[in-house]
Amino acid sequence: MNQPQSIVVEFDAADVRRDFPILAQEINGHPLVYLDNAATTQKPEVVIEAIADYYRSDNANVHRGVHTLSDRATQKFEAARESVARFLGVSDSREVLWTRGTTESINLVAYSWARQQLRTGDRILVPWLEHHSDIVPWQLAAQATGAEVVPVPVTDRGEIDLDAFDELLDDRVRLVAVNHVSNALGTINPVEEIARRARAAGALVLVDGAQAVGHFPVNVEALGCDFYTFSGHKLFGPTGIGVLWGRGELLDAMPPFLGGGEMIERVSFAGSTFNALPFKFEAGTPHIAGAIGLAAAIDYLSGVDRAAAAAHEETLLAETIARTADIPGLRRIGAPTRSAGIFSFVMDGCHPSDLGMLLDEQGIAVRTGHHCAQPLMERLAVPGTVRASYSMYNTLEDVEALVAGIRKAHTLFS
Amino acid sequence: MNQPQSIVVEFDAADVRRDFPILAQEINGHPLVYLDNAATTQKPEVVIEAIADYYRSDNANVHRGVHTLSDRATQKFEAARESVARFLGVSDSREVLWTRGTTESINLVAYSWARQQLRTGDRILVPWLEHHSDIVPWQLAAQATGAEVVPVPVTDRGEIDLDAFDELLDDRVRLVAVNHVSNALGTINPVEEIARRARAAGALVLVDGAQAVGHFPVNVEALGCDFYTFSGHKLFGPTGIGVLWGRGELLDAMPPFLGGGEMIERVSFAGSTFNALPFKFEAGTPHIAGAIGLAAAIDYLSGVDRAAAAAHEETLLAETIARTADIPGLRRIGAPTRSAGIFSFVMDGCHPSDLGMLLDEQGIAVRTGHHCAQPLMERLAVPGTVRASYSMYNTLEDVEALVAGIRKAHTLFS
Repeated sequence: MNQPQSIVVEFDAADVRRDFPILAQEINGHPLVYLDNAATTQKPEVVIEAIADYYRSDNANVHRGVHTLSDRATQKFEAARESVARFLGVSDSREVLWTRGTTESINLVAYSWARQQLRTGDRILVPWLEHHSDIVPWQLAAQATGAEVVPVPVTDRGEIDLDAFDELLDDRVRLVAVNHVSNALGTINPVEEIARRARAAGALVLVDGAQAVGHFPVNVEALGCDFYTFSGHKLFGPTGIGVLWGRGELLDAMPPFLGGGEMIERVSFAGSTFNALPFKFEAGTPHIAGAIGLAAAIDYLSGVDRAAAAAHEETLLAETIARTADIPGLRRIGAPTRSAGIFSFVMDGCHPSDLGMLLDEQGIAVRTGHHCAQPLMERLAVPGTVRASYSMYNTLEDVEALVAGIRKAHTLFS
Repeated sequence: MNQPQSIVVEFDAADVRRDFPILAQEINGHPLVYLDNAATTQKPEVVIEAIADYYRSDNANVHRGVHTLSDRATQKFEAARESVARFLGVSDSREVLWTRGTTESINLVAYSWARQQLRTGDRILVPWLEHHSDIVPWQLAAQATGAEVVPVPVTDRGEIDLDAFDELLDDRVRLVAVNHVSNALGTINPVEEIARRARAAGALVLVDGAQAVGHFPVNVEALGCDFYTFSGHKLFGPTGIGVLWGRGELLDAMPPFLGGGEMIERVSFAGSTFNALPFKFEAGTPHIAGAIGLAAAIDYLSGVDRAAAAAHEETLLAETIARTADIPGLRRIGAPTRSAGIFSFVMDGCHPSDLGMLLDEQGIAVRTGHHCAQPLMERLAVPGTVRASYSMYNTLEDVEALVAGIRKAHTLFS
């Protein structure tokens, strides 16, 4: 036989699922169907154990200690930074800063870069499909500096209008802030192309990767952006920890954000001088257990075939779209060509929150509302949506449960 | 018998100790003697379990969900805020804000209050014995506003000079920022008296309680201050979580610090409006597991006789002072009348860090250096100290081990 054979690698979601203890429970008498992964992902047992082990064996404050526990804590904490650097394709781990999460990361740039650099008339371009955390920090910085936040149009499909973007890209634009994946619609934005055009026009590019890193590998140097940020809790890691990567020369030139211990070189009442990267931006005792837990999540992901996981999530989404196509009055919101596991929809006669509650009665966790993206809801002329967001541990049975739940709601409400 | 009997309640530190799994290990062949509690405290098993249980059973994003897990996470998260409010004697839990820790709390006030309110010529009074985290944020705010950070003298005993404080308290003073307990010396500052005088002079008072709450109960309304802050990790709780309490009318009048989800009421590109307290200051997904872990620590403390624990710590300190009094060349740094479990010292002919390493070889964890209090070190004319800091789980055996370790070092170095 000379015919080429397609080798189908089945991604064993049921196997991955067993690593996540929370998923093995019943909600309202039904097996939990967790489809709120865009809000936060669940944690594999190895992450939970890494945190507990740290507290049971190694806990100490980092960097300033001469004792064994402090050395151990410091080594684990800095090894976690190295893990993140490798995970993002960053060659110099001093460019990896710990933050509380994506929101704090963006605010750090808004305070230490935007408030210092922007002047009256300068512009920040922000697509209509951004999360509030990638809008409000820029608005506050714009108010403080006289700069302007200018929305970049999106199409009815929920994609950035690149022609409109080009038209807006003039020499007033100092920064383009864009999410890698829309939390509300799942759109995978062409951030490499956006970064190329923006940087050619002399603007910096910040990419909010909160919704991306859990779905596919990211290499920030290949993307060509200037800042990239994500949250641990959306990457199967702990709450309270996140990352800001920035180009070293930019971070070096930025003044400190928060003042305190760790970020200083020398403090006196006559004046203080500041530490080198990354510590300049890490005032105070960091979330040590959080960094270690996040590294455990990254380590766990290194054992996952991520291309297969992404393909699996695509299948789940495609099946959801196909199996709901005949439900009268159901309308998917946005129809991006490239999408990362999010099915956002409305149904005639049934308010999103009512539908969400009805699904919950069947053990199905979805999110409803504006998804912290009110401008996008306004643009798409919906008050909110029901959002089912998949992760690699979801299964076709989850899709079936969701579709059955929607059908049941449709029967009840029509 | 008519004679009054003094009832001596023995605090059973050995019993408390068993609740902390990390303490049951050997370091360099010796039982761990953990005397670095001012850097971070250890965590009881119930705290570690509370975090793990949250991730294994309830993890979801808070506030915006319609599903059961999200409800459960929200209830636990907000119940944690109530716990903190009770713990601090605060009647309105909306005044309790989650932060990453004391450092971020102080920076929040420095950004949202100081940078808004201060003008050229205004003054912030900061005692010489402050931690860098209670100096640098004010220096940055002063640079931004033209205000001035003025140090309040401390005595050779390591206490705030209240007469000098009175002299500095004129109508230029807008804020007094003071720690409740000095992290470097253990001094318990008379913050109630300081607050009374400062507020009478029309200044606000921020109290850094990071080193206090782990040692004795605090009631912020009785203290009469305007802001109070502490870190979870120094209160037997997780890393990455802290608290800022502020008077409601002050917090209400302050503009937001970080922008993003949760802190908004309505976002549009035409302009955004902000949420009510406490959410106005809590942009982004909070450290949910951290808040829940901190509440577990507070709950654990409610089962501890805290007056007895404080008396026990006083005994440990008194024994340390007594048993080291005859070591030639050993000099305690600071001799505050009221002190919270810290023994800070230098020894002739032995650099603090060498002594620290030598103690580590015997399993004894102390901190050495400037303790993020360089101005204080400068004031007391020492480059740094060795700091042994006690907590309630330390025992007289720990004191004996420390004293034996110091004697051994003295023999080696003299």
